Amino acid sequence: MTTGDDDDKRGRRTFLKRAAMAAGGLAVTRSATAGDGPPGVPEWTRGMGTGVADRGYGLPSPYEKDVVRRRIPWLTASAESSISFTPLHALHGIITPNGLAFERHHAGYIDIDPARHRLMLHGMVDRPLIFTMDDIVRFPSESRIHFLECVANGGMEWRGAQMDGVQYSHGMIVCAEWTGVRLSTLLGEAGLKPGAQWVLAEGADNAVMTRSVPLAKALDDALVVYAQNGEMLRPEQGYPLRLLLPGYEGSMHIKWLRRLKVGDRPWFTREETAKYTDLLADGKARQFTWVHDAKSVITFPCPERGLKKRGHYEISGLAWSGSGRIVRVDVSTDGGDNWRQAKLAEPVLSKCLTRFRVDWSWDGGPALLQSRAVDETGYIQPTLTRLRRARGTNSIYHNNAIQTWRVAPSGKVINVQLA
Amino acid sequence: MTTGDDDDKRGRRTFLKRAAMAAGGLAVTRSATAGDGPPGVPEWTRGMGTGVADRGYGLPSPYEKDVVRRRIPWLTASAESSISFTPLHALHGIITPNGLAFERHHAGYIDIDPARHRLMLHGMVDRPLIFTMDDIVRFPSESRIHFLECVANGGMEWRGAQMDGVQYSHGMIVCAEWTGVRLSTLLGEAGLKPGAQWVLAEGADNAVMTRSVPLAKALDDALVVYAQNGEMLRPEQGYPLRLLLPGYEGSMHIKWLRRLKVGDRPWFTREETAKYTDLLADGKARQFTWVHDAKSVITFPCPERGLKKRGHYEISGLAWSGSGRIVRVDVSTDGGDNWRQAKLAEPVLSKCLTRFRVDWSWDGGPALLQSRAVDETGYIQPTLTRLRRARGTNSIYHNNAIQTWRVAPSGKVINVQLA
Repeated sequence: MTTGDDDDKRGRRTFLKRAAMAAGGLAVTRSATAGDGPPGVPEWTRGMGTGVADRGYGLPSPYEKDVVRRRIPWLTASAESSISFTPLHALHGIITPNGLAFERHHAGYIDIDPARHRLMLHGMVDRPLIFTMDDIVRFPSESRIHFLECVANGGMEWRGAQMDGVQYSHGMIVCAEWTGVRLSTLLGEAGLKPGAQWVLAEGADNAVMTRSVPLAKALDDALVVYAQNGEMLRPEQGYPLRLLLPGYEGSMHIKWLRRLKVGDRPWFTREETAKYTDLLADGKARQFTWVHDAKSVITFPCPERGLKKRGHYEISGLAWSGSGRIVRVDVSTDGGDNWRQAKLAEPVLSKCLTRFRVDWSWDGGPALLQSRAVDETGYIQPTLTRLRRARGTNSIYHNNAIQTWRVAPSGKVINVQLA
Repeated sequence: MTTGDDDDKRGRRTFLKRAAMAAGGLAVTRSATAGDGPPGVPEWTRGMGTGVADRGYGLPSPYEKDVVRRRIPWLTASAESSISFTPLHALHGIITPNGLAFERHHAGYIDIDPARHRLMLHGMVDRPLIFTMDDIVRFPSESRIHFLECVANGGMEWRGAQMDGVQYSHGMIVCAEWTGVRLSTLLGEAGLKPGAQWVLAEGADNAVMTRSVPLAKALDDALVVYAQNGEMLRPEQGYPLRLLLPGYEGSMHIKWLRRLKVGDRPWFTREETAKYTDLLADGKARQFTWVHDAKSVITFPCPERGLKKRGHYEISGLAWSGSGRIVRVDVSTDGGDNWRQAKLAEPVLSKCLTRFRVDWSWDGGPALLQSRAVDETGYIQPTLTRLRRARGTNSIYHNNAIQTWRVAPSGKVINVQLA
């Protein structure tokens, strides 16, 4: 089951040897080798290109115009309380570019004037405070690379819907380098009163998103962030200030953060009672299930990127855990009967996407591709069957089941659920 | 000189204590504490925001419209053979967003149709090959975070010009997560003939940029990359294919890569004879000086971001080395008489930007800010005086001197050179 170092090297050598044979069809034609350049000189080499003046902020190639966030019109009643999905099938590595980071708004996104934005910190503190953005950026800062996932990511698959593509089945996730101030630093400024146990976080959008955060998390690795991938947050991501709770469900990472209140019990807001609880088969609901368990998905091949012909490929995907580092990902091409250990790309960071890759030779027959992540706590990503056995089919939250892609002999890849 | 762990903790405690005292002026007004929210509810909270439909690829907040790449009109004769600079003063962490990555073109940037792009590999190989983009992405891939710096970065400072801002003095650098195929994999496909020692890399732009790369580097950590920060390369960065030579000078990272030729000696192209050599005081020139030595710069405070009032700040900056990891950065506030060790933000990666930070209390008097990087080889970033003593003032390449920012009592920050 495990591919050791020696096997791995042998596998790579075999891959290269076979690829070299396959490359026979790629050998240059006589006209090419006769000269010193490839056959033909395209028009873009014949004339001057575009200068650098006055472009300012760059954009992708026009040939990448289909690589965009997408919305499913029928999924939500309005565009303001809606979702756009990250195109995971078109991404490489672990960083999500800001222009492609998924959105989940409850009342649309807003354009806040940072000069007028304030963050209030009050409740069970010695000294209530109001911070301007100038105040916030003067504090000691930290940068960390973390994933951020909507808890409803994959929720439509619970009862059997099979979204046509990894963008829709797993695209409510982003991974970025975040920069901001430790929440513990701000709480230290205000001074906590005895008995403080919870922090209420409130957003400045029209939905006034409000969630209760346990003080232990607030004092551990929580950040109040203002930058994402080097630049200031985008409006859709909470500009100019957002709460970041590494590993916790996305809706708690309050965007457009304007208020923090310290208390001795949770507030039981709408978003942690009527919403964002996990309804079980017996009618009871799990509450305060904040942490994302280990999860993974294969992003190539996938429904958006099928196979053109038999031969050697690299299966590639993403794994993550809200509990720490990913230590292992196994990949199956036969629906879970046999597994091979994938290579994890460095850096492997805590509560961060990890890119995994494994070589594969497709013989042109049907295949069932799966990936299974294990995190540093020893937790193993479950099958959908096992998840339903434990939690029923009512919930739409915290679906971290193993995903199956069926490869048809045509090379088409289909989202399927195994019995 | 060194700040040990204990000193560091004490420094942080003192900072927080003093900041808390300073925060007295920030305490909320009576009207705010009387209610449950900050004073006033801004208009963006009163109405619905913008929905997610049909935006596709996101952009920064309109309030960040001045955070753009900038060109210096007088610096180059044309916009096609020109430069735009990364706004380092406005960036956080280590990742440069693709829209802000500096440009250096020799004949403008081009929009290549990836379906028509080819990479030819020939010369001293067993089997000349031409790859399509489909071929390239099928190979085993790697992702790595590396900086990429133009060798002329800071070149204008050599003879005494003092550019007004860190965007212009140090902004010809970018740091990104790159994904592609190892060059050694492609060379392995073609098979190297005995005696092969060099690889010529050629771009598809109108300048047909051409550089000789030693085979040892090509077989070590060189990548042929197609993705930058998750998405496909931007046209300005070589879409759809670019050579990446971690730690080497930027002009060798051939954009729009269309040809690789293997040979037994360098080609002595224009870009490694007339250009990109370092003219010394005695009229001789250093050639093939590819590797960037250790370097650093403070990005806050800097000319673009002065100080508003005396008090506590966090000095922050970037350090990098083409020879490996940064192991230490020291910061001086008195022009190099005294130094304090800065904290390095994780992850600290090889041939990658490293963010450093150190607390500072500005007493309102004049100050001379400097940073000095040390890499894992033990190399220490030199002063400009020392660099000029060794290499004269003719060169505009490989200036890795310590940068000095003078803080005036007004809080204004000025680029100065110490005698």
